[in-house]
Amino acid sequence: MTERFRRGVARQQELGGAGPRRRAYDALADVAPDLSRLAVEFAYGDIHSRPGLDAAQRELVILGALITTGGVEPQLEAHIGSALAAGLAPRAVVEAIMQAIPYAGFPRVFAAMAIARRVFDDRNLLPLQ
Amino acid sequence: MTERFRRGVARQQELGGAGPRRRAYDALADVAPDLSRLAVEFAYGDIHSRPGLDAAQRELVILGALITTGGVEPQLEAHIGSALAAGLAPRAVVEAIMQAIPYAGFPRVFAAMAIARRVFDDRNLLPLQ
Amino acid sequence: MTERFRRGVARQQELGGAGPRRRAYDALADVAPDLSRLAVEFAYGDIHSRPGLDAAQRELVILGALITTGGVEPQLEAHIGSALAAGLAPRAVVEAIMQAIPYAGFPRVFAAMAIARRVFDDRNLLPLQ
Amino acid sequence: MTERFRRGVARQQELGGAGPRRRAYDALADVAPDLSRLAVEFAYGDIHSRPGLDAAQRELVILGALITTGGVEPQLEAHIGSALAAGLAPRAVVEAIMQAIPYAGFPRVFAAMAIARRVFDDRNLLPLQ
Amino acid sequence: MTERFRRGVARQQELGGAGPRRRAYDALADVAPDLSRLAVEFAYGDIHSRPGLDAAQRELVILGALITTGGVEPQLEAHIGSALAAGLAPRAVVEAIMQAIPYAGFPRVFAAMAIARRVFDDRNLLPLQ
Amino acid sequence: MTERFRRGVARQQELGGAGPRRRAYDALADVAPDLSRLAVEFAYGDIHSRPGLDAAQRELVILGALITTGGVEPQLEAHIGSALAAGLAPRAVVEAIMQAIPYAGFPRVFAAMAIARRVFDDRNLLPLQ
Repeated sequence: MTERFRRGVARQQELGGAGPRRRAYDALADVAPDLSRLAVEFAYGDIHSRPGLDAAQRELVILGALITTGGVEPQLEAHIGSALAAGLAPRAVVEAIMQAIPYAGFPRVFAAMAIARRVFDDRNLLPLQ
Repeated sequence: MTERFRRGVARQQELGGAGPRRRAYDALADVAPDLSRLAVEFAYGDIHSRPGLDAAQRELVILGALITTGGVEPQLEAHIGSALAAGLAPRAVVEAIMQAIPYAGFPRVFAAMAIARRVFDDRNLLPLQ
Repeated sequence: MTERFRRGVARQQELGGAGPRRRAYDALADVAPDLSRLAVEFAYGDIHSRPGLDAAQRELVILGALITTGGVEPQLEAHIGSALAAGLAPRAVVEAIMQAIPYAGFPRVFAAMAIARRVFDDRNLLPLQ
Repeated sequence: MTERFRRGVARQQELGGAGPRRRAYDALADVAPDLSRLAVEFAYGDIHSRPGLDAAQRELVILGALITTGGVEPQLEAHIGSALAAGLAPRAVVEAIMQAIPYAGFPRVFAAMAIARRVFDDRNLLPLQ
Repeated sequence: MTERFRRGVARQQELGGAGPRRRAYDALADVAPDLSRLAVEFAYGDIHSRPGLDAAQRELVILGALITTGGVEPQLEAHIGSALAAGLAPRAVVEAIMQAIPYAGFPRVFAAMAIARRVFDDRNLLPLQ
Repeated sequence: MTERFRRGVARQQELGGAGPRRRAYDALADVAPDLSRLAVEFAYGDIHSRPGLDAAQRELVILGALITTGGVEPQLEAHIGSALAAGLAPRAVVEAIMQAIPYAGFPRVFAAMAIARRVFDDRNLLPLQ
């Protein structure tokens, strides 16, 4: 277990735990065990834990990227949870998704907002304050 | 001139002025005069000036979206400038672009970083502190 | 209620009513009530109701955009319905989807055609004349 | 020379000739001679010349697809020319591009509109009537 | 039935039969009967059966393209099967998907790997050797 | 200098040297020095040098991914060079690009083929054998 992996796991813990990522990781453990290790080491240990931006700021960039990519529901669900864990209020997450409209278009934003609503509902955050 | 347009222009002023947007707007004025008006009214007057996230947070979402979209150099240039005007340090902008690697891939990030470098150079911000 | 909203609602009525859009709008009403309002005002009140192209011509552009975007099933379903309401025959809708093959590739077109088939089936339009 | 190729060439003639396509075809003739042949046979001979939609309607779908794809300037230039040749007025082409805003986002539309302006300028169509 | 169609069907046979493609073809037969014919003729008869690369090499390119496109599950499922039929071991398919990470990003790769796992499971190839 | 970096550099050497990558790396050294290090460590040290596929097979996947992404000319140029260094003949590279047509569409393929032609020309490989 590398230092990068340890750092990545620690970062994921700060973001509320592996959560839905864990399910994706476990589901592929017998086929591509290195995939989840590389995701933890690289995406969290090398990138997300860098200095210069805090976790909430990083999640805003990630939300912009994932909304625009489209069709990546598990990651969007995970990162909406991470955004909340990083201290963004649910309404701030809603605003982040709204902010993507002029760039990614309405269809991508409707899809992302439906996922956000589901995350909020799962966490008993509805109705929003 | 609508209230939404006035609000959009005011927001653009806070973000350092229309700057490179102005060039794009003027270049299309004789073909699609409504395009720049709609961009100001909708993207800035309706969306960017909403409460719930500050300007710097909104620019982080936009950077994530534009890096991922790819091939939108004038907008990326304009929004790197807006990110600086909204109070993000050049190093924070670099970090925002780095954060996109695991989601948008290296090629999109190299392209975006080259644009950021050019914006920094134009503003005599190199070498970075 | 703005004039833009009224114009947007009127345009949606001409296109057969909000239909599947309504479901998406209602599902997000407690999380992002402004999202559906902005979609009606901007996408329909500002853009779709502009002069210079009729509703059927606008739906052809939208079909090209949505097929290419991919992964936006609810919008594709809604706009296939709008295309029919705007006077395009089912076979013209099929042809519009076929026309995207050389640009968006076969996989996006197969996905779009499967949605079109479902819309036709829901409206008892099968077998096609 | 197949019947499909002949049909494709005839269709391209109706659309104002191969024009900018010809430059792309010739530039690759010594590396991938089959590429332009397949484009003529398939995109024009098999698809564009199908019954059920007229040439102008097909160009509207193609514009929606190309604007959304992004980064395909030579094709967008060629198809804006084809749209004019198929009988769409310059203002109708402008409207087609405007119609993509809510789906493909502003950046893609600004890029497409700049190309349209250049095509209009090359053909002495400015200022638009 | 054209020579191109015959060649395309033969190529699909070498790749393990139409398999999941057949379901997509049949499902659309009453709406767009030409779509599956064109896919066989063009994608398999014109392109896949060209000399200069063997079938396994072609499937590697297709995997790279489909992973990056995203949201094209039926085609990815079909081509993972074709890759196996063309002689790539399951572990080579896993490696091909891993190779896309730096370019298409982790989310697209997780989605593709989940489909690969399902194909392997359906064929009793788990646990991988 | 990590073992992963050393492994990455070694892999790049096998692929003909950093070449055009070097220019991109150097150009960003004063702004984002970690970006090129991470690219070498992760894309080459962690991924490209994995067992299970040889370098030429990996370049075929990468070509499929980059052609589909679009707008990533420097990377496409670099990887066409890598494909040649990995033992693929120029005609095999042409075929790999042709193979993307049914999935990524003609416009992306025309753009990629023009880049391939330039790489071949720079290396005095024209006319192709």
